[in-house]
Amino acid sequence: MEKVSVFGAGSWGTALSYVLAQNRHDLLLWTHRQEQADEINQHTNKRYLKDTRLPESLKATSDLSQAVAHGDIFVLAVPTKAIREVCQDIKKNLNRKVLFVHVSKGIEPDSLKRISEMIREEIPEQWIEEVVVLSGPSHAEEVVQEHPTTVTAACENTEAAVRIQDLFMNSYFRVYTNTDVIGVEIGGALKNIIALAVGITDGLEFGDNAKAAIMTRGLAEIARLGVKMGATPLTFSGLTGVGDLIVTCTSVHSRNWRAGNMLGKGKSLDEVLEEMGMVVEGIRTTKAAYQLSEAYNVPMPITAALYSVLFDNVSTDDAVGKLMGRTKKNEMEDLVDLL
Amino acid sequence: MEKVSVFGAGSWGTALSYVLAQNRHDLLLWTHRQEQADEINQHTNKRYLKDTRLPESLKATSDLSQAVAHGDIFVLAVPTKAIREVCQDIKKNLNRKVLFVHVSKGIEPDSLKRISEMIREEIPEQWIEEVVVLSGPSHAEEVVQEHPTTVTAACENTEAAVRIQDLFMNSYFRVYTNTDVIGVEIGGALKNIIALAVGITDGLEFGDNAKAAIMTRGLAEIARLGVKMGATPLTFSGLTGVGDLIVTCTSVHSRNWRAGNMLGKGKSLDEVLEEMGMVVEGIRTTKAAYQLSEAYNVPMPITAALYSVLFDNVSTDDAVGKLMGRTKKNEMEDLVDLL
Repeated sequence: MEKVSVFGAGSWGTALSYVLAQNRHDLLLWTHRQEQADEINQHTNKRYLKDTRLPESLKATSDLSQAVAHGDIFVLAVPTKAIREVCQDIKKNLNRKVLFVHVSKGIEPDSLKRISEMIREEIPEQWIEEVVVLSGPSHAEEVVQEHPTTVTAACENTEAAVRIQDLFMNSYFRVYTNTDVIGVEIGGALKNIIALAVGITDGLEFGDNAKAAIMTRGLAEIARLGVKMGATPLTFSGLTGVGDLIVTCTSVHSRNWRAGNMLGKGKSLDEVLEEMGMVVEGIRTTKAAYQLSEAYNVPMPITAALYSVLFDNVSTDDAVGKLMGRTKKNEMEDLVDLL
Repeated sequence: MEKVSVFGAGSWGTALSYVLAQNRHDLLLWTHRQEQADEINQHTNKRYLKDTRLPESLKATSDLSQAVAHGDIFVLAVPTKAIREVCQDIKKNLNRKVLFVHVSKGIEPDSLKRISEMIREEIPEQWIEEVVVLSGPSHAEEVVQEHPTTVTAACENTEAAVRIQDLFMNSYFRVYTNTDVIGVEIGGALKNIIALAVGITDGLEFGDNAKAAIMTRGLAEIARLGVKMGATPLTFSGLTGVGDLIVTCTSVHSRNWRAGNMLGKGKSLDEVLEEMGMVVEGIRTTKAAYQLSEAYNVPMPITAALYSVLFDNVSTDDAVGKLMGRTKKNEMEDLVDLL
């Protein structure tokens, strides 16, 4: 049994708490809203997981210092843009080494930092045992229905990854380990771009061949970038690469796919953003990925085409025409050279 | 302009002929049925592509010797089990070197031969310029609608692969080259097993997480086998690996998915086969893949689970339980060792 604090009670933080409570760990779930903490202590969290009865042993608090005092392992389950703020609040109360796990997917615009880098920038080194990333193809709703799910725990320190594997693994939640933190974080973040692009081709009614092409070649360019940044190419063939890409691109519930779909049907970016009424992570990430491709000098034609549609008023038809009209290629070029 | 003979006028052979005729090559399409040749010469092939008007320049014949006399390039577009017979018929009329292209997906049971190996066994070496495989995520119906499609032309001889790339490539049909024939052929054939397995989990209503898990880990075990057979691991991340897998596993039109779906809903294999009333390629391939995993001593847990359901009366629930209950793994093990 481990003492665990989970920060963030959205659908994913709650679903992971469900798994940890079932695995009989000593758990405290933090949310900044007192009302939500009270509801969770009554065993539901209807805004995020509407039909789920939470385990009796799952306790919540809105007192951050209490959550910081509780765990030897901290699971950060807050949106990318809240990571630094939550870390700063945690730091104020922290006076011992803990093992950090994060489950967010994104790249910070302009700084181009990965999530684990942001954590290491905000929390003093002396209080960090390790930072582990938990990522993979996982709708929260399916996890709390106890349907089979597989994810990856990644850390350069294998012992820490195995500890997180042991923490979460049970009969319906299977955890693999991996040492490639960069590959896992880049794959998780950049898949949202591809979901946007697939939404566009679906909006243009191009069919399954085009969808598979964008997903496959999109993954290839993400891998090219990732490898330049220090990732292992095979990580992109794994659960956090192609696995997560499949879940994100083939589910009509994906916010990124929906935004792309509207663009493909001819709406402008402003119209789409107004209609969605919420942040579309893939749009921010497209900017970050475009900046990364320039910083690392890696050709990313799908990202560039998407960037031109989103930010340079290029029509979706012209962007697709340009993609299909590129010079002839060997499928493995760029990637093989780097192996 | 090249002189090309296409053998087989099913949906794929006809769609490829459509592309070649549009690319202004001198084309002759062979089918063993006179009636079908007559229909194609009137510019339709309604049984296979019901709404398509074929180009005027697309000519068909039922006279095999005429097709053999015509082309410098032969495109074989017949089912796996007809490959040897068609090659034997071609051989009787052949007296010069031609470039063979095949577009079939399968492994011969018991002999465990790939398609290109079967061709090389049937056609005398002196008449073979090269054998190129053309494969990738491509519904024929979408190609004749001129929707964007990407495929791979694979041959150890790069010059031959580039010649086939030039032959087919146009504004809606983008061709990449690859030198990894083994990887392309194994990926194309074994994806049908995964489609069966995904059909089962969909039939059990396990949801998207499980589907993504089976596809990702299925691809990993196919890659493990392929690498042992001499393939490059990255091929399985390409169009003929993950790309084709996505198209096959996410389309409800896939015969293999449909058969799996019925099994997942509790039908027996005999019931499924009776209801389908036609060959389900993935079932034959499961046997071949299981034999290959034993011959090459490669663990393939999803293939083994599927084999146990199909041929050893193991229940689908037990098979899934066994998969989820395996010992803890590092995601990249087996594969990384082989790089």
